[in-house]
Amino acid sequence: MILLSGGLDSTTVLAIASSEGYTCYCLSFDYGQLQAIELQNARANARAFGARDHLVLRIDLDRIGGSALFSDLPLPKGRSFEELKIGIPPTYVPARNAIFLCYAAAWAENIGTGDIFIGVNVMDYSGYPDCRPEFLHAFEEMINLGTRAGAQKGIRFIVHAPLIMLTKAEIIKQGLALGVDYGQTHSCYDPDYEGRACGECDACLLRIRGFNEAGFSDPIPYRKGTMI
Amino acid sequence: MILLSGGLDSTTVLAIASSEGYTCYCLSFDYGQLQAIELQNARANARAFGARDHLVLRIDLDRIGGSALFSDLPLPKGRSFEELKIGIPPTYVPARNAIFLCYAAAWAENIGTGDIFIGVNVMDYSGYPDCRPEFLHAFEEMINLGTRAGAQKGIRFIVHAPLIMLTKAEIIKQGLALGVDYGQTHSCYDPDYEGRACGECDACLLRIRGFNEAGFSDPIPYRKGTMI
Repeated sequence: MILLSGGLDSTTVLAIASSEGYTCYCLSFDYGQLQAIELQNARANARAFGARDHLVLRIDLDRIGGSALFSDLPLPKGRSFEELKIGIPPTYVPARNAIFLCYAAAWAENIGTGDIFIGVNVMDYSGYPDCRPEFLHAFEEMINLGTRAGAQKGIRFIVHAPLIMLTKAEIIKQGLALGVDYGQTHSCYDPDYEGRACGECDACLLRIRGFNEAGFSDPIPYRKGTMI
Repeated sequence: MILLSGGLDSTTVLAIASSEGYTCYCLSFDYGQLQAIELQNARANARAFGARDHLVLRIDLDRIGGSALFSDLPLPKGRSFEELKIGIPPTYVPARNAIFLCYAAAWAENIGTGDIFIGVNVMDYSGYPDCRPEFLHAFEEMINLGTRAGAQKGIRFIVHAPLIMLTKAEIIKQGLALGVDYGQTHSCYDPDYEGRACGECDACLLRIRGFNEAGFSDPIPYRKGTMI
């Protein structure tokens, strides 16, 4: 069970799980995010890596609000990497990974697997509380108590986070080695009407630096004038 | 933050929280359940108890399936109370309470409260793994690690389950004392087109026995021929 946003990280996770021989089921969410364009990439990548099934669930997370991804808060642009490291960014979505992992467990239980993959990492962007290993461990404990699979000990849920200790550059190198087409991944929180990345939001800044450090050029289009 | 299904238990929880002086925000879900008629009662009760706000979220839980509440599995009828106590019933919905509690925490975080109320109980119907105290404790641990509120220690999430050790009869007596109109609560998993209860599903059987034991008559309509 792969949580697949259509971004750089989760697509790399799909490539890793696929290379390890897992039969992949991909789960994506339309939750009212500004960058819903990423779902097109999720569909393309699920196909590219031969996923057995791909489900895109519409969930009303945007009606709860509380995030710059729903336009409730201003989206930061042009921050320094030092600024990125401080505190929890306004792109934080309340309880998002907990919610996504719960749905993943629900579907996994029906399929009969306990292996859930998520593309969180703490190296380049440590601000999100729901990307930390201690959260993932607590989630495993909770979901194994709160489901039939866990309660009957038929399946034990394990949350795999293969990127958790990697830098963006390391993620990109690993993905390229596994055949990821990063031209079909989306990271920008503020794409224009043609889907071009802004080059200035936190997600763009980390992606651009990752490609620079990895020594590869980023195949996605950025808006005119973006310095990459 | 009250998880309000429109059923007997969660409506009683709303009455309890309201009587304790909490400002109540009610959260309900349209998740494709057979008994979606319960949402009308949720709206009525949120109004009746003066809730500050009431949100009904549409979430695609039915697309994951795996429950008799989505017609994936046959709905048991006419079971004995001994049968009700054995195993996990087919009306179990994978990870349902974990998902509901996550959304409750997300909205609670935006409002600025850590108090979440849920109407689970283990006395009359112990089959659901996500109604057990050990699950609720693990959920608190997880959500306090996986949210801004918890990570910054501004709010500590507490899951209140005031009915957890009560029988259905005790719940009904407490609710009546607090002014609950049980005519505006729905329990049946298989209502007819007029919303009348079947009298034979697990939820009806427990409700009917609860009213009998409490010594009150159930004000909701049952289909013709139901023995109550």
